[in-house]
Amino acid sequence: MGTRRLNLGCTFVQWSQIPVPAVFQVEPVLDGVAAIKDEEWLIEPATQTRSYRDMYGNRCRRLMLPAGRSEVTYRATAEVPDATEEVDPEAPEIQPHELPDDVLVYTLPSRFCLPDVLANEAWSRFGGLQPGYGRVTAICDYVNQYLTFQYGSTGPWSTAVDVHTSRYGVCRDFTHLGVTFCRALNIPARYVFGYLPEIEVEHREAEMDFAAWMEVWLGNRWYTFDPRNNTPRKGRVLIGVGRDAADVAMSTAFGAPWLESMVVVAEEIDAG
Amino acid sequence: MGTRRLNLGCTFVQWSQIPVPAVFQVEPVLDGVAAIKDEEWLIEPATQTRSYRDMYGNRCRRLMLPAGRSEVTYRATAEVPDATEEVDPEAPEIQPHELPDDVLVYTLPSRFCLPDVLANEAWSRFGGLQPGYGRVTAICDYVNQYLTFQYGSTGPWSTAVDVHTSRYGVCRDFTHLGVTFCRALNIPARYVFGYLPEIEVEHREAEMDFAAWMEVWLGNRWYTFDPRNNTPRKGRVLIGVGRDAADVAMSTAFGAPWLESMVVVAEEIDAG
Amino acid sequence: MGTRRLNLGCTFVQWSQIPVPAVFQVEPVLDGVAAIKDEEWLIEPATQTRSYRDMYGNRCRRLMLPAGRSEVTYRATAEVPDATEEVDPEAPEIQPHELPDDVLVYTLPSRFCLPDVLANEAWSRFGGLQPGYGRVTAICDYVNQYLTFQYGSTGPWSTAVDVHTSRYGVCRDFTHLGVTFCRALNIPARYVFGYLPEIEVEHREAEMDFAAWMEVWLGNRWYTFDPRNNTPRKGRVLIGVGRDAADVAMSTAFGAPWLESMVVVAEEIDAG
Amino acid sequence: MGTRRLNLGCTFVQWSQIPVPAVFQVEPVLDGVAAIKDEEWLIEPATQTRSYRDMYGNRCRRLMLPAGRSEVTYRATAEVPDATEEVDPEAPEIQPHELPDDVLVYTLPSRFCLPDVLANEAWSRFGGLQPGYGRVTAICDYVNQYLTFQYGSTGPWSTAVDVHTSRYGVCRDFTHLGVTFCRALNIPARYVFGYLPEIEVEHREAEMDFAAWMEVWLGNRWYTFDPRNNTPRKGRVLIGVGRDAADVAMSTAFGAPWLESMVVVAEEIDAG
Repeated sequence: MGTRRLNLGCTFVQWSQIPVPAVFQVEPVLDGVAAIKDEEWLIEPATQTRSYRDMYGNRCRRLMLPAGRSEVTYRATAEVPDATEEVDPEAPEIQPHELPDDVLVYTLPSRFCLPDVLANEAWSRFGGLQPGYGRVTAICDYVNQYLTFQYGSTGPWSTAVDVHTSRYGVCRDFTHLGVTFCRALNIPARYVFGYLPEIEVEHREAEMDFAAWMEVWLGNRWYTFDPRNNTPRKGRVLIGVGRDAADVAMSTAFGAPWLESMVVVAEEIDAG
Repeated sequence: MGTRRLNLGCTFVQWSQIPVPAVFQVEPVLDGVAAIKDEEWLIEPATQTRSYRDMYGNRCRRLMLPAGRSEVTYRATAEVPDATEEVDPEAPEIQPHELPDDVLVYTLPSRFCLPDVLANEAWSRFGGLQPGYGRVTAICDYVNQYLTFQYGSTGPWSTAVDVHTSRYGVCRDFTHLGVTFCRALNIPARYVFGYLPEIEVEHREAEMDFAAWMEVWLGNRWYTFDPRNNTPRKGRVLIGVGRDAADVAMSTAFGAPWLESMVVVAEEIDAG
Repeated sequence: MGTRRLNLGCTFVQWSQIPVPAVFQVEPVLDGVAAIKDEEWLIEPATQTRSYRDMYGNRCRRLMLPAGRSEVTYRATAEVPDATEEVDPEAPEIQPHELPDDVLVYTLPSRFCLPDVLANEAWSRFGGLQPGYGRVTAICDYVNQYLTFQYGSTGPWSTAVDVHTSRYGVCRDFTHLGVTFCRALNIPARYVFGYLPEIEVEHREAEMDFAAWMEVWLGNRWYTFDPRNNTPRKGRVLIGVGRDAADVAMSTAFGAPWLESMVVVAEEIDAG
Repeated sequence: MGTRRLNLGCTFVQWSQIPVPAVFQVEPVLDGVAAIKDEEWLIEPATQTRSYRDMYGNRCRRLMLPAGRSEVTYRATAEVPDATEEVDPEAPEIQPHELPDDVLVYTLPSRFCLPDVLANEAWSRFGGLQPGYGRVTAICDYVNQYLTFQYGSTGPWSTAVDVHTSRYGVCRDFTHLGVTFCRALNIPARYVFGYLPEIEVEHREAEMDFAAWMEVWLGNRWYTFDPRNNTPRKGRVLIGVGRDAADVAMSTAFGAPWLESMVVVAEEIDAG
């Protein structure tokens, strides 16, 4: 199996009247799947940053956005497997009492994923299906069909319940609903945030953006599912995992800077 | 077509520390379909009542519940057609610009029916169906299957959106969701509250209660639909119609009396 | 007492791919307070309209917006009293059992006003105050201080509860919250929609818009209160009253035309 | 400073038709403040258990509730300082950029604490106060006065926003609202669940229950605050800390056993 090389990165241009503390989550996880190289941060005006790992092991970078205009850029290259994520229709659901201890938390409700509230809906639609990988696939198919993708249709506070009502959302909302249905069935599911290059994709989106998808615990590992795109893809590079988007935010500011622009890059090098 | 004779009525036993103004909506509408006779109010301790019509023409009775224990009974007999409500699969939906003026209000949102919020859900599920009586039937079939009837699953503030999320409800909730879907499609629908005797019904409920169903404007009249029971019935006696349950409450108290018991009667006389 | 003369009116420029039935509620009520003259509708392309009164007696105009661009203009002149609305600190609250029958409906919950849900909040803040005109004034003062006016902070589905949580709103939201608090205390309150010229107002708003305020039943009549502006004003011209904004919408379309622009006029003639 | 000795524990009697996996969080944290001794689990019918630490370091115990009736008892003794928790009016708030990395998570929204949604409310009420310990005290005083304690007024899904609307709650709700206000102001706050004996308390509650309170990061440590009781107390024994009640649940069942009874013990030994 060969590899592909990607340019990754993002640039945030922001304005603030006063210095604002901020945390950026845009550096990929160092999980060995993607080899991350040549990382660099370019910040104008120059400012110090500091890196730490959050409770999920995600890499976070703290810095103080200066007053006035600031431009924060992260870039790196990644070598990723020239293969789509693994699909395993035989992977079984694991009964709750056999789940690893540290996986249990991904069966619980969180800020945006409300399996308690949508329990009846989840059991009514999916409770009668054969447990296992196929049932999670059925959930993804359902969410993919049920919701209509539309920028601006939801906001930063929209939960899986809101999205279930309105039937509109963006990739984060598709993921929250998929995660919610899994958890309602006691299937551990977590939220993933990352770069998703458009390798061998027919219909490209107008502009590149960060992407959200989910991982589901089946057998003895996490499997990738993507209720938004709902098709195996090459080149996913994870920035972080967590319970939902509240845990993995590209940028958290302790104040209210104005975001003039955000540009995300995730493209193959020498793709032709 | 013959008629059937019904005993109708209800008794509320309530307690209050102070006198409490109240309005009861339990007297059937005088619409000519059901012939209402021998009406009487029995109130202990004796208290004056006063009747008026609300903005929908429903009969309401005002009185002051005395301090202490009170027992309020209404009873009447009704002659109703020995026939189930009319079914007309040919009845067409009417385009909004051809609806009568006074029917337009039944296309709008109200306290418990939120066609604005569930618009996308309604259009996604029913927008592609052939307009007309059959589409309303499809809505009723869907609601009847989608929701699970369960006493205590909802409260006095539960909206059609809440019910759509939880998938549990009582007859009022089934009706609110059905009304909501119709209105979202610009089909006028209104909430009906009344007596529903169990004539020729196989599976009887444990205890008689008031019932809620809906009327939908098709062709040039209101047709009866019942998302809860979802089968034609004999002997419906309407107490009131309105936009939703906020308009037709069996009892509205301006204070907080404690309801010790409520008994509803709706049974055939000499049924054998 | 003299009068003042106003130019009133509005123009809606809309686009639609197909003809869309619509109802406009922009013609003032003919209540004798304001003398309405010289009314005219200018519609391009020319289209027929039809007038009717809704269940509250408000004047509504139905028409079919043509496909393509349409421009709908209403204009009129009004003679209004050269006086601010009446203030009567002695006006008493009326006990529920003494309220007129047709006023009772304004104590109930409606689409956007939820006195049931905010009952405890209302009683905690205002339950201990002396009943009467002064208590309603206290409610208006509170709402006026509590909420921050901000265009775009709420949407067409925002209820009084949402506004109570976010503390942001526009005049309709201020009114919904004021109405809600009154109803929670069993004080009848209704929503008013109308023209509000800026006569003798110091700080003028950038652009004229429709306005919303409320009327509260005290003694034996409706009194005007305005939680948004919270100061007596001259020249209010009522377009409609109802339970809340769901009952009095400037424009209801049975379809989704795109609103290119809306201009509202409410200005004194020869003011100098 | 002396110590006091406590008996701690709880018994859950549950029924289930099938074996149900469950996790109990009732064992105190081993933080050195309370010395925990003589711990034992008594389970009938006898069943194996297994202990693990969750992501916050809380002790959790997994077991399989058998079909039929089960009785799960945990008990222990604790030696606790004979002193109320520390109060330090001089403790300062720490600016976000100076907060320890692992404390940052407690400024974010979580399942039941929604500082994003109540941001404006928090800043309006507390934004103008002097930062520091006193501001957190002001938040606790406010919540303590604002909410009315009432069993059954909220449910397992009630968020801080719901509680802010209804003004009713139990200790968990008081805590969620207090935590929410702190986080909205960028003050780290976390939810604590534990045993709270009634040592030197004048008005005792009818029955002992688990208690919830919060810890707030000021200066360089966590301080205890209790918006429910709002007075320093002796003998708090922590079971767990987390972002909110979703992280620290006394019992999580993967199924729906029926809870016949729950008894909690937290009393001084030889108290007289």
